[in-house]
Formats: sequence, C-alpha cells, structure tokens
Amino acid sequence: MPYFDAASSAPLHPVARQALQASLDEGWADPARLYREGRRAGLLLDAAREAAAEAVGCRPDELVFTPSGTHAVHAGMSGVLSGRRRVGLGLTVSAVEHSSVLHAAAAHEAATGGAVSEVPVDRYGAVTPDTYAGALREDTALACLQSANHEVGTEQPVAAVAEACRSRGVPLLVDAAQSLGWGPVEGAWSLLTASAHKWGGPAGVGLLAVRKGVRFAPRGPADERESGRSPGFQNIPAIVAAAASLRAVRAEAAAEAVRLRALVDRIRARVPELVPDVEVVGHPEHRLPHLVTFSCLYVDGEALLHELDRADFSVSSGSSCTSSTLTPSHVLRAMGVLSEGNVRISLPAGTPEAAVDRFLEVLPGVVSGVREKLGAPAGSGGAGTVAGTDGVGASLMVDALGRRCPIPVIELAKVFGEVPVGGTVTVLSDDEAARLDIPAWCEMRGQEYVGEQPADHGVAYVVRRVS
Amino acid sequence: MPYFDAASSAPLHPVARQALQASLDEGWADPARLYREGRRAGLLLDAAREAAAEAVGCRPDELVFTPSGTHAVHAGMSGVLSGRRRVGLGLTVSAVEHSSVLHAAAAHEAATGGAVSEVPVDRYGAVTPDTYAGALREDTALACLQSANHEVGTEQPVAAVAEACRSRGVPLLVDAAQSLGWGPVEGAWSLLTASAHKWGGPAGVGLLAVRKGVRFAPRGPADERESGRSPGFQNIPAIVAAAASLRAVRAEAAAEAVRLRALVDRIRARVPELVPDVEVVGHPEHRLPHLVTFSCLYVDGEALLHELDRADFSVSSGSSCTSSTLTPSHVLRAMGVLSEGNVRISLPAGTPEAAVDRFLEVLPGVVSGVREKLGAPAGSGGAGTVAGTDGVGASLMVDALGRRCPIPVIELAKVFGEVPVGGTVTVLSDDEAARLDIPAWCEMRGQEYVGEQPADHGVAYVVRRVS
Repeated sequence: MPYFDAASSAPLHPVARQALQASLDEGWADPARLYREGRRAGLLLDAAREAAAEAVGCRPDELVFTPSGTHAVHAGMSGVLSGRRRVGLGLTVSAVEHSSVLHAAAAHEAATGGAVSEVPVDRYGAVTPDTYAGALREDTALACLQSANHEVGTEQPVAAVAEACRSRGVPLLVDAAQSLGWGPVEGAWSLLTASAHKWGGPAGVGLLAVRKGVRFAPRGPADERESGRSPGFQNIPAIVAAAASLRAVRAEAAAEAVRLRALVDRIRARVPELVPDVEVVGHPEHRLPHLVTFSCLYVDGEALLHELDRADFSVSSGSSCTSSTLTPSHVLRAMGVLSEGNVRISLPAGTPEAAVDRFLEVLPGVVSGVREKLGAPAGSGGAGTVAGTDGVGASLMVDALGRRCPIPVIELAKVFGEVPVGGTVTVLSDDEAARLDIPAWCEMRGQEYVGEQPADHGVAYVVRRVS
Repeated sequence: MPYFDAASSAPLHPVARQALQASLDEGWADPARLYREGRRAGLLLDAAREAAAEAVGCRPDELVFTPSGTHAVHAGMSGVLSGRRRVGLGLTVSAVEHSSVLHAAAAHEAATGGAVSEVPVDRYGAVTPDTYAGALREDTALACLQSANHEVGTEQPVAAVAEACRSRGVPLLVDAAQSLGWGPVEGAWSLLTASAHKWGGPAGVGLLAVRKGVRFAPRGPADERESGRSPGFQNIPAIVAAAASLRAVRAEAAAEAVRLRALVDRIRARVPELVPDVEVVGHPEHRLPHLVTFSCLYVDGEALLHELDRADFSVSSGSSCTSSTLTPSHVLRAMGVLSEGNVRISLPAGTPEAAVDRFLEVLPGVVSGVREKLGAPAGSGGAGTVAGTDGVGASLMVDALGRRCPIPVIELAKVFGEVPVGGTVTVLSDDEAARLDIPAWCEMRGQEYVGEQPADHGVAYVVRRVS
C-alpha cells in the first residue's frame, strides 16, 4: 500500500516509536517541579533539547519546543514583529510560503496595518536573492523564507537571502519544515522553524530556534514554560521521540537522499513519456530529494486522487477541486503553472523502488480513464482541422460559466481547432482555476494568451491561435 | 515511591498507554486528506471527539482539541472576547483562577484596555454566587470560573454562577482542569476547558467546548483545523489516548472518589493532631476528593519539599520560597490564609492507604526538623512570660529586613512573649510573604493584627498582644 504523501505527514519512524514508549514512564511529570519525577522529566527534556539543537545547528538555549510547526511559525513571527516594533511593521515573505506563514502575515496586516511584501518566484517556484533583497525596506521588521517548497520541492537560495537580510539588519525566519530531516539549513538565518511529524517524529512537536541577539517579545498571555516562548505543559515523551528520530533520520539522510532522488528523477522523466499533456513542475536540480509534482491537462484533480487511492496510491494535489476554497494552490498560482490534474508525490524514507515502478504502470490508465469520463480531447493535438492564415478577426466564444476545473480548459481545447490561425477563442468562466490554467494551456500548446476581460458574468479569457 | 502531586500531572493511565500505542499505526496521517491513511486518522479523531464530548456533556461539533489546557483557556477566552467585542471589553474572573486564566486576563487588559473584575473569595477559597453576579456589568463580554481550585481543592458554585451569568446574557467559561476526570460540570456553562494529563491522559491534549450560540471569533492567524479554533496538525494518538482514558477514569471515578476522600479526610484530621501550628486550608466538604492543602507555621516551604522528597514523597507548595517570583501563591493570598510551610497533596487514583499512613508517620519529624534548623519557637506557645494588663503603649520592634519567609514570622513569635498584653510588636520586613503570613499568624494565635505602615525600608507590620 504505497503512501506517497510524506510531505503532509510521515509514518512514525521506528526510533520515534521506541523513544516514545521508553519515555512514557519517566516523561509524564512536570519538569518544572523539583521532586524526583519532575527532575527525571526535566532531564529527558534537557537531553531532547540538546539533541534537537545539535541537529538544527544552534545552542540548546536558543531552541524551544512548540505544539506544532504551525505554532512555531506563529510564535516566531509574532515574537519578532512585536520585539522589533520600533523598527517598523514591515514584513517580507515569499509568495510560496506555507499557509501558516501567509496566514500569520495576513493576521499581522489586519491587526497592525503593517505592510506585507510578497516576493514573487520564477516558474520553478524559487525567489532570486536580488528580488528578495529588493523587497526589504527601512521598516522591514522580519523576513521569512522557506528552505524548500512543500508543494513542488524547489529549494530556495536561503544562504544568499540570509546574507542580504543580515547586511540590512533584518532577521530572517526560515521555515525548514520540509527539509530539516535531510540536513541543517545553511546560512546566517536568525530564526528557524520545523515540525517533527514531517521527518517521522510524532505529531504534537514543533521546533522554534531564535538566535541570541534577535529582539524577541513573545505575544499573548505570559507563560513560564519554554523560556516564555511557547505556553502550555510540554509533551515530553513526544519531544523525546521527535529529537531521537531526527537524529536517526539524519544518520540515514545522505544515502536515502541519493536513493530517493533517483526514484524521483525516474518519475520526472517517465511521467511525461507515459502520459500525454503533462507538465512536471518545480526545479529540475535544486530540489528536495523525495518530492515531485506534475499537472495533467484535462484532468479533475479530485477524481485523479480518488482513482489513485482506489489503486492504493496516496498522493496529494494542489488542484482547486481538492481545496475547500475551490481555488488552486497559491504555490502553483505564484509559479504560473498548470494547476488542473495536479499530483504531488513525496516519498517517505524507505519507499521501495517497486512501488514507484508500480505507480508508473498504473498512472497512464488512471489519467486516461479520468480524461475519458470528462470527455477530454484525445491525443495532444491542439491545432485542429481548420487552418490558414486568413483567420484574423475570426473568433469563437465558449460559455463555461458554472463549470469547474478542468471543464473550461477542456471546452477551450475542443473548439480550438475550429478557429483559423490568427483567430481567437474567448472562454467565459467563473472558476478561479481558469485564470491560471488557460494561460498555462497556452504556454504548453505554444498558443498566445491575449488576456482577460471582465464580463457580465465571470471573466472572459481570450486566446489567439498562432499555429 | 509515593507521588502526591496529581494536580500538577497524573501518571499515565494504563488505558491511555494502550490506546496511544494502538493508534500509533493508524493515527499519524493527515485527517484532512481523503486517501486511506487520512480517512483512518480521521475516523480515530471523530471517535475520540465523540467520546470526549460525551464525557464533557456537549455535542461533538462543540468540542475541539487543543495542544494543552493552557491553549484551551487562551483560545476560549480570546475567542469570546473577540466575538463579543460589540458588547464590551469587560472580563470577570475569580481571584483564584489558574494562572492561564489570569495571564490571559492580564494580556486582554494590556492589549485592549478592557477592565478585568476579580471576584474575591472567602477564607475557604470559594466565590459566592451573589458576589460573582454583582461583578457582572453591562459591558461584561466574558466570565470565567474554575470548577474547583487547583491549590486547595475547594469546589466553586458553578451552577449558580452559570445561572446568574445566563440571566444577564454573559457566557461563562468554566476551567474544569482539576475536576473533569471526576465528573461532568453541572449547570448552564457556555465554554469549558480541560487538560488530559490531569486525569491520566497524555500531555499535549486540551479540550475546548464552546456551546452553540456563543459568539466566538478565533483570534490570531487563520487555520482550518479543529473548526478554526485550534491551529496546527493534531496529535491523533495522544487525542485517542486522552479520550479513552477519560472514559476509563470516569468509570472508576465514583468508587475511587469515596476511597480517596476517606484518605484525604484522614490527612485533614490527623495532620493538625500530629504537627503543632498547622492550618489546614480549603473547604472541609465542598472539595475535590483527592486534594488537601495545609500550611505549617515557622517552616520554609522549599526545605520542607526537599525533606519530603528525600523521604520519597513528591508534593507541591504555594509558599513564596518555592515560586520563581518569591511571592506566595495568589490563591492563598486571595484566601488570606497562612502561606509559609505550605504543602499541597493531590493523590493520584489508586494511591494505596499505606502510602498515606506512611506520610502521616514521616511528616511530624520532617516538619520539626525543618523548624529546628530555622530556630523556630518550640511548642505552640505564643503568650510568653511577661503578662499583665498594663502594657498599653509598650512596644517592641523586630528588624527582619532582607530575611525571607518564614523568618519574619519566626522573629515575631520569638519576641512576642516579651511584650505585655496591650503592647505591640512591629515587624519590619521587605518579604512579600510577610503581608500574608503575619496577619495569618495573628488569626491562628488569636492576637490582633493592627495593620501595616510604610517604612523607610520595607513595610512595618504591627501586631497587638490581646492575651
């Protein structure tokens, strides 16, 4: 039963399980108490903090445990934004950060009126250090950049951005949730956050490292635990398991990264050969070893996930139909790549080669089955029967109002061959995904995306046939 | 090795351990995902929510899991204070709430300027419904009252206060951290909070119940999990263990309450017989079954805890010397009872009778040992050698500046016999505990506490000998 969604949550590592069970007997008491049971719990907590700090690359007194990666991000961002209020209220983030960062940024903007600058990314999902540095201003209190993207696996130039931030005196918070199991984050970061269940530790444990010298003022009600940076009674057995499994995962990381990278490279190469009309997204080289994402034209992401689940493959998707808000993933949107029929595969450590082979066997049939049900155009043809160069002025209108992704793109493709070269097709759609997927279709097909215009209902997307 | 501090954290219940281990294999995936592993995790979460809601006495969709009792309190309070902002910014709490409530109240006051009314308690630590109702105002957005006090065990008149709140349209949040294992909270409460590690569940799980109809606006960054009321990835194995152990603890609660109440009654009766100059605090009847607190005159709390630990007893204390801020417990202060030499005993379920017997054997020697080292006056004598009714105007001054609890009270007691009836002793002290313990000494000794006056250094506490 291949589970290919480690980027959401990894199965518990055997070392995590052992450490958890071994510390249940000694880790339940209050580590702040001075009696025997408290002292024992305190010793476990201290040892876990030292082990985790070593893996992060910071001092133990710079590291606190939080109840989740989300809590680490929220506490880290609000602590710096409060502590550096005199500098200003400016906040810089990349456009492809995890939702915990973007939601904290939105909350900061709503509560204080502080401006949030979103640094755009290239088509691979990466910021450039220059663009990032250009977004830093006099009043920037905090900058945030993930170590690697959780949806497409692209690594960010953290060390260069950290240096740019350092030279301007702006602390950089690095969300290392996806990468910490693979290795420490290089560069002069100021804060780092992570989440244990992403590397095979238990849920319920996040890490927040704050370098000495960073102005930090915890927000919210006072609480003495975890240096005042993370309220509530610590879950020590889970913390012990998190630290032990991080160490274990790190010991296996170099070899496992090589092995998984080969499997991911195979998926990246083979999927476009096996399945027509696929766009593999994310950087081809600067990437996490275990994560690969692609999108399939004319495919409903939810149906695809369902069929893959029936075939025993558990994957996730950034397609709009798999989101509760019916909008495509903000990461794919920021990259400007196709979002329909999106599949993210993130291999847990230990994934056997045979599971990947089997996936590659199953995928083509699953995709073509979904396409068939939707009445998608067969083959990768785009330019159809009507041709000629006299089509300037000729136009067709497709009404896809009320139809959800991928139908507007399917309808576009169906009629596209009917306009001559030079002519246009206008798609009326009220589906958010169309705004991303119609231009992406043009890019994949080599056709011209003219632009969008407001319409009485929905939006009119105009495409010109150029070949 | 008797552990008598269940009110801080209870050892893991065997059912919690079993449930935790049994759900590690199925509870690690993201319950928001639709694939097999996610659905299994979701089923575990749903079942745990139903079980916990049944034990709380609410609907499953009224209950969310938080990472701790502290998080539940913070989220519950801030959610109502935000949601009812149009009503006003007023907040009513009892003076003896858990620090998580009082710290959230202070944060609310600091952030919004909203007024916090603290309802005083009687000498047993209980509010009266009338006093509580009198503190509710037109602009009161939220009222908070614990079900039972965590330091002295006194039960609060929650049902009557809830009714008073209901009739004025003010939602009442009940912090049930100490009592939920013993039974549901009666009365028309609006919100309820609790913490699993207090009943023998694992750390890392709090409960927040919010009745339908309560205006609630989660504060802080948006997050979809737990109905938007508690951010971060859920720790499902811990949640399953929390719910299973709550059910198990409840099944044993009635019988165990009877048994532990008898042991606590024995401690309450025997300690004052075995140890001179002891004040047993908290309500004699309306109390938690497993918790008893007493204070010993002329005793250093930290030394007492240390000696009890050496004798294998783990207890806690509200004495100032055991607090990082060197102030006595706010609960003892609000009750106006002696804080020096304070011992809280909270028996975990299953505590054998023999452990309590052994404690009663050991305690007298431990207390007299600590008193001897401090040079405390022997016996319970107060009125000493000099007597007569002609002492009006006679006075003595004791300089205890720079001396910590219990020294100022010991110095008072040492010289008290030297003034005649009608005369006064003035104690100069800069120790916060003196403000509480000198009046408490007068109460215990039947002498008159005249009052305090500012002095060049510290405060002058004046006591008149009346017998």
